[in-house]
Amino acid sequence: MSAISIGLLGFGTVGKGVYETISKHQGRLQAIFGREVKVSAILVKNVSKHSLPDGEVLLTDNFQEIIELPKLDVVIDAIVGREPGYTYLRQAISRGCHVITANKEMFAFHGRELARLAKHNNVSLGFEATVGGGIPIIQTIKQLLNANKIERIEGILNGTSNFILTSMREENLTFEEALKIAQEKGYAEADPKNDIEGYDAFYKAVVLSELVFGKSPSQETSVREGITGITIEQIRVAASLGLKFKHVASIQKEQETISCTVKPVLTGEAHPLYRVEGVQNAVSIDADIVGNISLQGPGAGMFPTASAIVEDLIHIGKADFPAVFEEGKSEETVLEQPVWVILGDADQAELPEGFETISKVSKDAFIVKASFEAVSLLAPDLKAYQVLGYYAPAAEENKQVQPV
Amino acid sequence: MSAISIGLLGFGTVGKGVYETISKHQGRLQAIFGREVKVSAILVKNVSKHSLPDGEVLLTDNFQEIIELPKLDVVIDAIVGREPGYTYLRQAISRGCHVITANKEMFAFHGRELARLAKHNNVSLGFEATVGGGIPIIQTIKQLLNANKIERIEGILNGTSNFILTSMREENLTFEEALKIAQEKGYAEADPKNDIEGYDAFYKAVVLSELVFGKSPSQETSVREGITGITIEQIRVAASLGLKFKHVASIQKEQETISCTVKPVLTGEAHPLYRVEGVQNAVSIDADIVGNISLQGPGAGMFPTASAIVEDLIHIGKADFPAVFEEGKSEETVLEQPVWVILGDADQAELPEGFETISKVSKDAFIVKASFEAVSLLAPDLKAYQVLGYYAPAAEENKQVQPV
Repeated sequence: MSAISIGLLGFGTVGKGVYETISKHQGRLQAIFGREVKVSAILVKNVSKHSLPDGEVLLTDNFQEIIELPKLDVVIDAIVGREPGYTYLRQAISRGCHVITANKEMFAFHGRELARLAKHNNVSLGFEATVGGGIPIIQTIKQLLNANKIERIEGILNGTSNFILTSMREENLTFEEALKIAQEKGYAEADPKNDIEGYDAFYKAVVLSELVFGKSPSQETSVREGITGITIEQIRVAASLGLKFKHVASIQKEQETISCTVKPVLTGEAHPLYRVEGVQNAVSIDADIVGNISLQGPGAGMFPTASAIVEDLIHIGKADFPAVFEEGKSEETVLEQPVWVILGDADQAELPEGFETISKVSKDAFIVKASFEAVSLLAPDLKAYQVLGYYAPAAEENKQVQPV
Repeated sequence: MSAISIGLLGFGTVGKGVYETISKHQGRLQAIFGREVKVSAILVKNVSKHSLPDGEVLLTDNFQEIIELPKLDVVIDAIVGREPGYTYLRQAISRGCHVITANKEMFAFHGRELARLAKHNNVSLGFEATVGGGIPIIQTIKQLLNANKIERIEGILNGTSNFILTSMREENLTFEEALKIAQEKGYAEADPKNDIEGYDAFYKAVVLSELVFGKSPSQETSVREGITGITIEQIRVAASLGLKFKHVASIQKEQETISCTVKPVLTGEAHPLYRVEGVQNAVSIDADIVGNISLQGPGAGMFPTASAIVEDLIHIGKADFPAVFEEGKSEETVLEQPVWVILGDADQAELPEGFETISKVSKDAFIVKASFEAVSLLAPDLKAYQVLGYYAPAAEENKQVQPV
């Protein structure tokens, strides 16, 4: 059978991630599709700036060369901006190609029309990558909508602004200092307006509004406010109240009006978004039958976004039951020794071999690194509990805790 | 078109939730299926103990009467225990019925065989409700598996044991006291062994292992340990180290061996399960391309579990794109006035009407309740930030914070 032929629009971070993922996991894709999955052509702005390991791929700055390829099954949109993405995807759908997009601005404005066109032409339209990067938000919402009415969605939909707010609070930085670090780390563009003024989050909120309520938010009741007004002093006052600033997008329906607000709010410890830090994204979904569901994960980045796109790709052709991947032996992973808290009346000296003491916190408790095997040899009056999540040992050795 | 006919096995909490959900949301279901969805028969242990508002439903203690109904499209298993559930579902599949189950113990042992049978008979097999109640864990994992290899899953899969650990820590209770409260609240059975000894979580972990890795965990490398050994003193020591006890199920593959452990561990603040409290469930999934995704929500209960079952039901007949529910006007919801922190140099007296002061925390910050409209009328030198998540006002009025 001939290969599945993909036209990839854009070869920036997302486009490269898609290309590499498809190349690297070809075995996996072939097992699912029963044939080769091949990027046949890539649209770039400047052909001379790029080179590819695979000489068979058409690298071009002219979309017409791609859309006129003799064989083209899927077009993946990894460019930004409303145009030319919209025009290109219309052409692709009209030709009978399945389309997948990561372009949130374009999709916020033209998603409904593209969905109509795709339905009319009997092709698939994947947009998992437009919201929340690698978190399967779109698919989860579709699943919940099977049984539920969704009443409200709150989300941290922009990792850049969340990173800035987290850095300001944790590192005691000004907004400008935190923004500079975000730019140095590649989280923020040279012109960061799209992220810090909430445009990016607002586009994503519009996509969710269309998906959940079937229409865009009302302009009258919607708000888009950035985080540039937040000061370190305000963050300190909030912290003294046990609150954290978060840049939250909120989409809800009251009577027949959909309101969408993107603005800095304060979250208390009980709120599902309180603990979402750094470049992480998260959504909290209130649905009428099931209650509240929240999802968290990487909201951007090369491979998380590529993962969402490849999920959409496979969705196009997948059977009802997922294939379980059995590619033979998986690579061996070198695991760090687990960390344990050991409780019980014991001195460090009594521990068998193979225990690395990190700190002794009291006469009844110390923290160690040790293998599972070593722990299984402990005296029965000692109890070891594994510690999950990074545990930073106390700076002072033999730090005392209140006697228990 | 004739109605979709459902046979419901069991009429306990889950069975009742399914019955009520199907009755209450009939309009929604008819919009999706294009015809009536009807519970035709319910299997109970003791017919005289139950009564139904709808006289047309067959209430019986004899499964043969159900399986021999002239028309039967779907069988929903809401009973517990390996038998007779397994035998009943085999019969249903052989007859050509779609089956949906919430029975984790049965499915942990017989899921693979039922999947084989269902495939052979070309019917659907839904098991979303076996793990994580209303959280769409199964569907999310299927979605991630489209592109990713899943490397590890960690989860809080039993709400009862998590409720007990949370209550012990937060309310300073002994294990026995916390268990008694869980029983009074209906979270724990009179015989709580299944929950507190980790059997329930282990069954769910087996279901996940089969889904993700295509086989059950190895008996040699697997561990099931309950929470009955955790003392309030241990919880205090852990708290002094910034750690919380959680009863965590962990499923991972090393070489060709699947290991599953259910045991109490300590979690640090950075761990995705650290903040999962009370009867909530959560899973943290590590996948090779996308990275870490976590999901949290109600792990049990009448309607969350019913929601998962109805999602499976609709999955049987749904089109590729979800219907957006448009049932006309939604009910009006009475919203409580939002809480705000107001920052800026102002006295309470200067606030316009419609502001209810909760507490003044410094000369530059106070907490109020007010409508969006009232807040929009604030003087421009004051900045109001909405507080999401419950915020408990300080007991002392005019509590001072460090000057900023």
